[in-house]
Amino acid sequence: MAATLKSRVASANAAGCEFPIQNLPYGVFSVDGGARRCGVAIGDMILDLAACEGSGLIDARGTFSRPQLNDFIALGREVWTATRARLTELLSEAATEPLPLVPMAEATLHLPIRVTEFTDFYASKNHAFNVGVLFRGPENALPAQWTHMPIGYNGRASSVVVTGTPIRRPMGQVRGESGPEWTACRRLDLELELGAIVGADSTMGQRVSVEQAEQMIFGYVLLNDWSARDIQAWEYQPLGPFQAKALGTTIGAWIVTTDALEPFRSQGAPRDNDILPYLHETRPGFYDLTVGWTMNGQQMARTNYNVMYWSSAQQLAHHTESGCPMRVGDLLGTGTISGPAPDQTGALLEMTQGGKTPVTVNGQARTFIEDGDEIGLYAHADGPGYRIGFGPCAGRVVPAAE
Amino acid sequence: MAATLKSRVASANAAGCEFPIQNLPYGVFSVDGGARRCGVAIGDMILDLAACEGSGLIDARGTFSRPQLNDFIALGREVWTATRARLTELLSEAATEPLPLVPMAEATLHLPIRVTEFTDFYASKNHAFNVGVLFRGPENALPAQWTHMPIGYNGRASSVVVTGTPIRRPMGQVRGESGPEWTACRRLDLELELGAIVGADSTMGQRVSVEQAEQMIFGYVLLNDWSARDIQAWEYQPLGPFQAKALGTTIGAWIVTTDALEPFRSQGAPRDNDILPYLHETRPGFYDLTVGWTMNGQQMARTNYNVMYWSSAQQLAHHTESGCPMRVGDLLGTGTISGPAPDQTGALLEMTQGGKTPVTVNGQARTFIEDGDEIGLYAHADGPGYRIGFGPCAGRVVPAAE
Repeated sequence: MAATLKSRVASANAAGCEFPIQNLPYGVFSVDGGARRCGVAIGDMILDLAACEGSGLIDARGTFSRPQLNDFIALGREVWTATRARLTELLSEAATEPLPLVPMAEATLHLPIRVTEFTDFYASKNHAFNVGVLFRGPENALPAQWTHMPIGYNGRASSVVVTGTPIRRPMGQVRGESGPEWTACRRLDLELELGAIVGADSTMGQRVSVEQAEQMIFGYVLLNDWSARDIQAWEYQPLGPFQAKALGTTIGAWIVTTDALEPFRSQGAPRDNDILPYLHETRPGFYDLTVGWTMNGQQMARTNYNVMYWSSAQQLAHHTESGCPMRVGDLLGTGTISGPAPDQTGALLEMTQGGKTPVTVNGQARTFIEDGDEIGLYAHADGPGYRIGFGPCAGRVVPAAE
Repeated sequence: MAATLKSRVASANAAGCEFPIQNLPYGVFSVDGGARRCGVAIGDMILDLAACEGSGLIDARGTFSRPQLNDFIALGREVWTATRARLTELLSEAATEPLPLVPMAEATLHLPIRVTEFTDFYASKNHAFNVGVLFRGPENALPAQWTHMPIGYNGRASSVVVTGTPIRRPMGQVRGESGPEWTACRRLDLELELGAIVGADSTMGQRVSVEQAEQMIFGYVLLNDWSARDIQAWEYQPLGPFQAKALGTTIGAWIVTTDALEPFRSQGAPRDNDILPYLHETRPGFYDLTVGWTMNGQQMARTNYNVMYWSSAQQLAHHTESGCPMRVGDLLGTGTISGPAPDQTGALLEMTQGGKTPVTVNGQARTFIEDGDEIGLYAHADGPGYRIGFGPCAGRVVPAAE
């Protein structure tokens, strides 16, 4: 898509705007308590796709009036491509058809998909090593299989919420001096991630190749996998994190499509060793995408998605290794995105060395997240004259219900 | 319910019948490729609940014509109780209304619920210890927190299948002599479990007490959590089992309700230590239920559900510890049910000491499951003059797709 392409929506052409005509991310919104419907972000407006479909401007077989994007996504990649082409046409500078545009400021944003199942991976080597040192010491930091397969675990889909939803500090069991203790979490953390949205079903008993997996991914959202580190440390052996990760997972409201990200395709981190053929990629599987996070508005860390070791396509292919069927609406967290330096880390656990080295936020010391703190994630890819942004992915922590 | 109560369906009154009028388990069936609908097992027949509702014999707000029981279950415990009373009336010896009964032999049984999310626990101390020895040695066999909380992990809902579905041996990465190896699983195992069906939603950020949790459970199914032990050993640290448990989970077709199990309420295993108040039970949380499994028709092991340490109500309460919302149709595996002796173990891993001590099945040696082997689970509670059975939970292993 030409970088010089402009939209008839003037705000979409402003420098630094996250939603230019080159982006066209999908979401679900409502106005004044009305029905939820699908939309596309353009500048500071939302194009009401249900209304577009109702007036014949676009055809997605009625799926745009549904309260989530799953049914549209299930139509498949050919429809995704055709719809994007039509939206580009309708929103371009030259177009003149009357369009149902809603100011984003007047809309309520909802979860863009009904999350079918949620899987979270662990694909930044810096993060895996840093956290491994804190949980198990430097000798056992990186598990032996880590450079041979994308390590992941099944998370909880029911606790995935949209940006802006308050996050309640969890209660839980932690290790006390003489046995377990029941307490409000004392080591509440964030995890800066992206989430890949699976856009096609696969069949039980049949594996999906990395190439097929890439074609199955509809797009990406920002994702904060809130984590209770003290609960995690006590519960996580031998079956992995459970309640420490079930207090809430915040995702952004806008799904940035793989089509919009295509110009930013990038290699990931260099490999330490050969990998098995089922994980081979025939082209670079990452994107050159700046990602970062803020606490109470203060910039905390920034890195690039292309520091990661395992791509979402590799993760999805591995997910089907055993014959596990994937379904439209499955959400695959990339894992925490961390660069090597403290100001490139996607979690406070790493940034503060497990709480030993406080950081200063607006003049106050922090090791972990305190009640009232707001964490915001961001991501953007910068092309010539335009920026592909993901919109906010924010949540404020409210006190525990003791 | 009186043990002497008889049904007008003669086969339901036969000695040893799993589906007497005291049971009334719910399932989903179809006939000759027709639409799926809800039914209740009675003797060797299925009462067609959709037809009952259509002719005004029973009222479940139209939910019995749905292809799964989730919508009926969501109506709540009062409706469950009223419906059970009405079914007992309709099926009793004295009743005379014409009933839409379908021979079970002519019906195809389907998944009784749309599985919303699947969580698997680890609640037999014998199993946890035995497996812990094999994976980590006797020193670290039982994790420190094991007697303080129900340990569980999120499993994969998309690979839950109904009894009779073939199970494909998975391919996967295993530890080789010099790095990972790509192979068909060589250590395929079963896990003998029950699965509790969550029958009510809970609210994000709000914990559920053990008493509330007990009221939220609709009933139980048999559950075989097929496990690839070699894949598991290589992948499971630090985030828990993933592809080793995603090849398939077989559940029985019939949900035995908590109302049917109520007369068999039982204490579980004695506690090693005090537990935190949020896990306290005010009454026994288990059932006196014989459970066992067969391989190729040969009896392999038998034990009782009441050997378990953590009840499903405790597991469900713990699941909401962090504020995690539960939903109708969530399936909670109890964990493998194993007694202390080898012929009481719910997995071959334990029975054969990790493959070191083969067992004989119909004259052939087995350490793990071979292609063509069929595993069958069973469970029943025996009352005075009647038996509450769960029906079959079987699966035959087919060769890997290499």
